[in-house]
Amino acid sequence: MDFITDPMEIERRSMEIIKPHLAGLELSEAETKVYSRIIHASGDVEYAPIIRIHPNAIAAAQAAMKAGKNIYTDVEMVRTGINKKKLAALGGEVKCLIADDEVARMAKSEGITRSMAAMRTFGKELEGAIVAIGNAPTALYEVLRLVEEENILPAVIVGIPVGFVGAADSKELLAKNEKVPYITVEGTKGGSPIAAAAVNAMLYQLS
Amino acid sequence: MDFITDPMEIERRSMEIIKPHLAGLELSEAETKVYSRIIHASGDVEYAPIIRIHPNAIAAAQAAMKAGKNIYTDVEMVRTGINKKKLAALGGEVKCLIADDEVARMAKSEGITRSMAAMRTFGKELEGAIVAIGNAPTALYEVLRLVEEENILPAVIVGIPVGFVGAADSKELLAKNEKVPYITVEGTKGGSPIAAAAVNAMLYQLS
Repeated sequence: MDFITDPMEIERRSMEIIKPHLAGLELSEAETKVYSRIIHASGDVEYAPIIRIHPNAIAAAQAAMKAGKNIYTDVEMVRTGINKKKLAALGGEVKCLIADDEVARMAKSEGITRSMAAMRTFGKELEGAIVAIGNAPTALYEVLRLVEEENILPAVIVGIPVGFVGAADSKELLAKNEKVPYITVEGTKGGSPIAAAAVNAMLYQLS
Repeated sequence: MDFITDPMEIERRSMEIIKPHLAGLELSEAETKVYSRIIHASGDVEYAPIIRIHPNAIAAAQAAMKAGKNIYTDVEMVRTGINKKKLAALGGEVKCLIADDEVARMAKSEGITRSMAAMRTFGKELEGAIVAIGNAPTALYEVLRLVEEENILPAVIVGIPVGFVGAADSKELLAKNEKVPYITVEGTKGGSPIAAAAVNAMLYQLS
């Protein structure tokens, strides 16, 4: 058993291994960090060609972070994955309502997912804030409905739900929206560590 | 926006879409559930050919769960992803020490990762229990050292760390061990939702 145990060295080596997989993508330095951290978190270099970052997304996210805005997540795993200490140092918190009793009641009575009910409950709170979705396509659809129908405009939507039922379609709709900058991934792949990685990559550049 | 909002129907549809991707793998019903839930959690059908389940792993994990044994995780995201209500109903808890101050001190003074220090701190507690690793290769290496050098034998090791530095090698070593049954994934891919999915798939079959 001969292996690297130093966390800084593990990360440095990992980023070095990822670098050639980003060749030819013409990324800014900030975008490179988002791509690298997503690939680092998934162990999957095939994320490189399917990540989509709106030209204003990183600047908008970082301005919101610096202004102390909160991050709203669909599931607890995304909240767990985000570096809350660094966010708190800027004045923001990570909010998630999926385990809330009132949200559970709403979900049951309306026959919708709890993460969808959670986003509906946040409602106007999402205005100017950061949304990070790493699990439920239904949560992303609900945020896009709030954008279109209620004109509630988050600063940025990190929308990377996962799976075979609605994920690809909801992310395509996100990438077509013209009101809110976004970070997303094409197709069925995604998940909590991917959404958290994108958020952390932007957060780490601020400190 | 026309999409399925009922959580049971989403899961049913998802499992139906995954099914053909498991054709030809000759899986038991219990194995099929582990494979399906991993693919469901990753949105990535390319997991199908790289999942490795030791013939005794599922029976050993479920016997430990029914006996009220705890699950020990390397990171908080794995703990968050595991269905703790269902585990508690059987008498078990999910334990994670990565945020522990003493573990942080040990990691710093020895130049190792916190998740590796956490596994070393658990030590004999891992005997007969379930280990679930979804992030750090160093944590898996440390558990394999406890197995080989200290003869501490967990009931099962769900070892699915992720990344480009040590993950593939540590998982290969896990699959070569002859003392503890395991669930793992070949190569660089893996992560917290994958490890949690494997655990939950086994847990859900008990209730």
